[in-house]
Amino acid sequence: MEKKIITISREFGSGGRSIGRAVADQLGIPFYDKELVEQVALESGFAPKYIEEHGEHSPGKSILSYVFAPQGVSGVMNGLSTADFLWNIQCSVILQLAEKGPCVIVGRNADYILKDRKDCLHTYIYADNEYRADRIVRLYGESEKSPQARLAEKDKRRRNNYQHYTGRNWGQAQNYDVCLNTSTLGEEACIQILVDMYRNCK
Amino acid sequence: MEKKIITISREFGSGGRSIGRAVADQLGIPFYDKELVEQVALESGFAPKYIEEHGEHSPGKSILSYVFAPQGVSGVMNGLSTADFLWNIQCSVILQLAEKGPCVIVGRNADYILKDRKDCLHTYIYADNEYRADRIVRLYGESEKSPQARLAEKDKRRRNNYQHYTGRNWGQAQNYDVCLNTSTLGEEACIQILVDMYRNCK
Repeated sequence: MEKKIITISREFGSGGRSIGRAVADQLGIPFYDKELVEQVALESGFAPKYIEEHGEHSPGKSILSYVFAPQGVSGVMNGLSTADFLWNIQCSVILQLAEKGPCVIVGRNADYILKDRKDCLHTYIYADNEYRADRIVRLYGESEKSPQARLAEKDKRRRNNYQHYTGRNWGQAQNYDVCLNTSTLGEEACIQILVDMYRNCK
Repeated sequence: MEKKIITISREFGSGGRSIGRAVADQLGIPFYDKELVEQVALESGFAPKYIEEHGEHSPGKSILSYVFAPQGVSGVMNGLSTADFLWNIQCSVILQLAEKGPCVIVGRNADYILKDRKDCLHTYIYADNEYRADRIVRLYGESEKSPQARLAEKDKRRRNNYQHYTGRNWGQAQNYDVCLNTSTLGEEACIQILVDMYRNCK
């Protein structure tokens, strides 16, 4: 059936975000990444930077996860941990964005949140470790941690977050309509494949 | 880099085998499916039908797994179970086929067996249960088991076999270069995507 929405789940450093932006540009539809973070920030009272750093990370289990709420917010959290509170708002924001019309949504477990809509093309973008390590150093610079350690840490956080909130395995093909390895195929080919799929899924 | 070999791992009923055959036809390269079974049969002394039924199933763990060897074969099995003996021959046959030149190989954990070759495009073909159930009834007819039970049984056997011999998770995107859901995309689109990828991966 016709697809209106593309969700992009992606491994850190794989190029999934760039691909999503290019696909949205070529299709002339909105691209939600930072905008989504900003909307969650607006609705939650948390700072965008906090949401960006924690929105796809492991859910907080310690007492500390309750104490970062900005003044005035904790009262409306109904005893939820910060992670669970933000998850609820994130679900609500993504469901609302999907209602607004065609778009590309990157990250934030949108594949799961929109799993009951039939008009979504769910994609998973990944790449070999060597490719991702090169790419993150090129894009984000060196840090005190090795690129491999940075990848391992991000992978673990995204995997745990996904598993916790969806009960599914991160990167399991059956959760998606298409999975593409950018290190084999190249970013340009992945963009073209997704644009063609979106246009051809009628 | 240039790709010479396509491996197709596929869920039962997803259309992976038909897609593989069509891709091989369009590319004008050999398609190994039954031929692979026949070669393993020839080298092992087992009947092709036995290989076809057991080559992708759970490894035999019981004493029974030793007693099915045809007369004259058990002497060369060096104490291996039938499953392990056939696995060794299957690996050898697949490595030899890959040496012969460009081809499409369906099933038999070829993605893992050829993982160290850089000239392979490893693909995973899958589909929703409803689509697969419809397809197996259409192609193979009804049986005393429900289509869902037949799918569950085959899925479990392939998953266990893959996990046992490769140490990997069946259907994990990272094991492949591309994963395609035929129930979303349609078989024709999947064929075209793979043909284009093969031609464009230079």
